[in-house]
Formats: sequence, structure tokens, C-alpha cells
Amino acid sequence: MTVGTVAFDDITTPFGRAEKVVGGACTYISWAGSYFTNDINLVSIVGDDFPKEELDALKSRGVNLEGLEIVDGGKSFFWAGKYHDNMNKRDTLVTDLNVLADFDPILPESYKNSQYVMLGNLTPEIQIKVMDQMKSKPNLVVLDTMNFWMDVAMDSLKEAIKRVDVITINDEEARQLSGEYSLVNAAKKIHAMGPKYLVVKKGEHGALLFGDGQVFAAPALPLAEVVDPTGAGDTFAGGFISYIAKTGDTSFENMKNGVVYGSVMASFCVEEFSINKLKNLKQEDIASRVELFKKMTSFNI
Amino acid sequence: MTVGTVAFDDITTPFGRAEKVVGGACTYISWAGSYFTNDINLVSIVGDDFPKEELDALKSRGVNLEGLEIVDGGKSFFWAGKYHDNMNKRDTLVTDLNVLADFDPILPESYKNSQYVMLGNLTPEIQIKVMDQMKSKPNLVVLDTMNFWMDVAMDSLKEAIKRVDVITINDEEARQLSGEYSLVNAAKKIHAMGPKYLVVKKGEHGALLFGDGQVFAAPALPLAEVVDPTGAGDTFAGGFISYIAKTGDTSFENMKNGVVYGSVMASFCVEEFSINKLKNLKQEDIASRVELFKKMTSFNI
Repeated sequence: MTVGTVAFDDITTPFGRAEKVVGGACTYISWAGSYFTNDINLVSIVGDDFPKEELDALKSRGVNLEGLEIVDGGKSFFWAGKYHDNMNKRDTLVTDLNVLADFDPILPESYKNSQYVMLGNLTPEIQIKVMDQMKSKPNLVVLDTMNFWMDVAMDSLKEAIKRVDVITINDEEARQLSGEYSLVNAAKKIHAMGPKYLVVKKGEHGALLFGDGQVFAAPALPLAEVVDPTGAGDTFAGGFISYIAKTGDTSFENMKNGVVYGSVMASFCVEEFSINKLKNLKQEDIASRVELFKKMTSFNI
Repeated sequence: MTVGTVAFDDITTPFGRAEKVVGGACTYISWAGSYFTNDINLVSIVGDDFPKEELDALKSRGVNLEGLEIVDGGKSFFWAGKYHDNMNKRDTLVTDLNVLADFDPILPESYKNSQYVMLGNLTPEIQIKVMDQMKSKPNLVVLDTMNFWMDVAMDSLKEAIKRVDVITINDEEARQLSGEYSLVNAAKKIHAMGPKYLVVKKGEHGALLFGDGQVFAAPALPLAEVVDPTGAGDTFAGGFISYIAKTGDTSFENMKNGVVYGSVMASFCVEEFSINKLKNLKQEDIASRVELFKKMTSFNI
């Protein structure tokens, strides 16, 4: 099951602009996840301006839309952003919450025993509301969030974090959340807040997985062309949890593999605007990039 | 053989200050290298203010000081710097060239057939002068440099680069040198300038090795405490080339191992001010951190 935004984005990068394209954390998570499982329960909200063919495309990938609220006459969440020259920083130009302002998710009965729950970046209150509705304890709950919620809703974010198994944030956010500069020390503090596992997403510098007193470091695949970083973190999360769901193994060893698959999916995401590249992958594309990843990280001492 | 500065540093970090401590690229390179070979030919210059016991310590590690010019009545190169809170940026407060201003290295005869040559960060003119004095073509020449030389001496830097096998720089420098933002494309441009191999040093984010149409990505070991990043790049370079010298194998496969050993040595360097930690390592310390590195990067897909 995945909760998060389904939205429109307006993205400007040094390489061009994509106006009113499909975006949203839940969209990226679902597309990435659909290469690992055809049993994704989506929870989100859109207006009736959201293109039906985009929803049909998700359905055809095995994404269950029973939990998608479509608001008659409503407008979908809209975000506009502009990336700096180095693509590592971006400015938010517009955030129109629209239907998201009143989002109060009611889980369909069939969702309430989902075993793998991805809480995409959203207000912590909504992430909590979703957890409250679960009937049985999931095998794994992963929460993604961002600095914005640390700034405006730290208390409820901490409530949400307390109840999850894995949290995925970037390095600056790990520092902000923990008050520790060293990521090793940040991980310790964050473990003490609840999550047994911490994934630190570092964009072009890869990702770190902390847990069980261990650490796994995955570099990012160096890419010749990065067109649009939007959604890379969500795509990572979607690949990560869906690989774990597919294998049914929540051990640290298998989470490492999840990080590799997440990184591979994210490497595709950034090569085109919006979800364009994620829509057209073959299993062979993924497998061959995993091979690249293995080659790139292996050494023989 | 290693060429570079032997100097005094004054270092301020958020964790404290070290006044007039031993520093210099050549010092770090030699100390790191001394754990792999006891046959390092040092080329540098100091004033007679440089402590004799520090030179004796290097000698006792098998570092040949025949090529170290000691200027009577001269003062050693002095650098003072202050790190920002996040340790990733620093400001240079003082640069007193002192004896370095007139450095015109004359290689001892016994150095002129050195098989592994590390050109530490210095004016490209000096790096070229050193190469000019070699009697036989070395197995491997590695050049380290920095953005400063790109700003003030790009032409002679390009002359120097043309003649070396490996260049080690950080990511911003790779971008500046090549004019390409993508490191994959930067590597292609830099290969075309001469060096078959490019090492991109990314500090806490690890290192990338490009060459032979391949790429190797090594993360940095996440550390609980980083006290002083000064010299980490030089220490990396010293470990890298000395491991290759020790094994006598300049293949891409073995260079990968060199990157791992370089990363491991750098991880020690930053844990204390100056060369303090590098002075007191045991082979077991290095071996156990290499094991950590293997564990941290291995996965099983």
C-alpha cells in the first residue's frame, strides 16, 4: 500500500521545462513499484482534472485505485519548481494544495491488512491517520518525509516516526531531525526515535542504509545525462519497498538489495521529465542496470 | 617518489584548533604511503624551522629525504584555514609561501628511475619540472591538483595533465576542468586531455574511478567523528599510489583496490588533527577497516 500525492508538476531545469506534467510522490512510488509487484494499493486524492488515461495506465500496471478519491469539480495538487544549474538545489515557485487541503483518507477494507506500507511524503497527520486504520500490523512500514514537515510539524512527525520501521530522508534532513552532524550519530538518535532502519538519500552521491548496528553504502550510478531529478527519492522508495514486498524478506541483508533496486529505479527516473522513463521500462533494462551497479561497486581484496 | 609541500598548518574546525602543526601534501602522502612501502623518495623544500624529529620520524618509516631541500634561515610553507560548521567548506586565512616561493626541485640521481610518481598538489610548473628530470618512463604517474591552479595556471596545468596516467581532483574541479556538469561526460573530456584514469574525490561521499570505459564507485566510510579533514585527499592519494606500487599492478581492477585503500587511509586521517592518527596505525587497523569497507559495500543479488 502506498499513500502520497498524485499531482501535476511544472518543472524547469537547465535542460528545459515540462509544464503541467504528471507528478506526485504516490505516482512515482507506484510506477517504480509496479515493476516488482502488481498488487499496489494506492491511497491519494485528485481533482477531476486529472487525466483518466493516466489512471488507466496505473491500473494496467496492477495498481489498485479503490483508495483514490476523485473530487468532482476539484483541482489536483500542483507544484512548480525550478532547479539551479547544478540540479542539486531547487526553488519551489508554486504550491497549490487544491484538493489536498481537505484530504482525509479513508482506507478501503481491502487495504487494511496490507503487509507493506509506504507512507509517501505528506503531512505527518495523514501518515498517522493511515496507520491508525490498519487492522493488522504490517510486515514493514516505510515513511518518507522532508525538512518542510520538520519545520512546521515536528511534533506530529515524531509521533509518526515512532511507529514506523524505516524512515527515508536526505542527509540534511537526517541532520536536522537528529541535531547531529555526523550521519553515524544521526542514525543512532533516529533509531532511538523509533525506526529500526534509516535510509539516507544523497541524490547523486547515493544512499546509506543504517540498521542492526550495520551500515550499507550504495553509490548512485553515474549518469551521462540527468534531465529532471523530480521524484527520484519517491522512485527510490517505491523500488525499495516493492522489492522487499516481492521477496517478503525484511532482513538487513535483503534491505541492502532493496536499496540497490531503489537506486536503479531512481537512475531511470532522472533521465527524463516526469514519469516518462518509468512508464516504458523492461525487466531487462532493470536487470542490466543492476548488473552495472554490481560491476561498479565490486572489488577484489 | 612523491613531490609536494612539507609545511606547517594552522587549522580551526568546529571541534577545536591546531596551531602550527605539521602538514603539507607530501607529508600526508608519505605517511599514508609508508604503510604500503618503505621505499618512498620524497621531493620537497622546508626551512630550518621544520622540526628535525618530524623528519626523523619520516625516515624511520622508510621515506628517503635526499630530495628534501632544507633552506638555512628559511621558513617553511605555512597555511592557515578555518572550516565551516559542516566541514565541507573551508576558508583559507593565510598562505605564506616562504621557501616554497623559490622551490626549484633537483631530483637526486637515485630518484630518476622511480617507477611510481605522485605529483602532489603544487604549481603545475614544478610538477612538469619533476617529470622532465625522470630518466625512464615510470609505470604510473599520478597528479593531484586543485581549482586554484585551474584559475591561475590552466595552460601549464593542461601541459602537466597531458603527461600523466591518473589525475585526482574533486567533483567541482572535474567540472571546472572539463566544462561538463555530468561527471561521466567530464571523465570523457579529461581522458581526452591525456590521463587514462580519473579519480574524483568527493570527501564524505567517497570517490569515483573512471578509466578503460569503466567506472568504480567507492563510498566513504561513515565516521562518527570527523575532527579535521585537512590532508584527506593527499592521504587518499598516498594510499592509492602506494598500494599500486606495492602490488606492481596498474590494471583498472587493481586501481579499484587502490581506491579502497586510499579511502581507508583517508578515513583515519580525518579522525585527528594533522598527521597524528596516521603516525600511529597498525597493519591490523588498516586490515580491519578494509573489512568494514567490504562489508559496507557488499550485497547479494
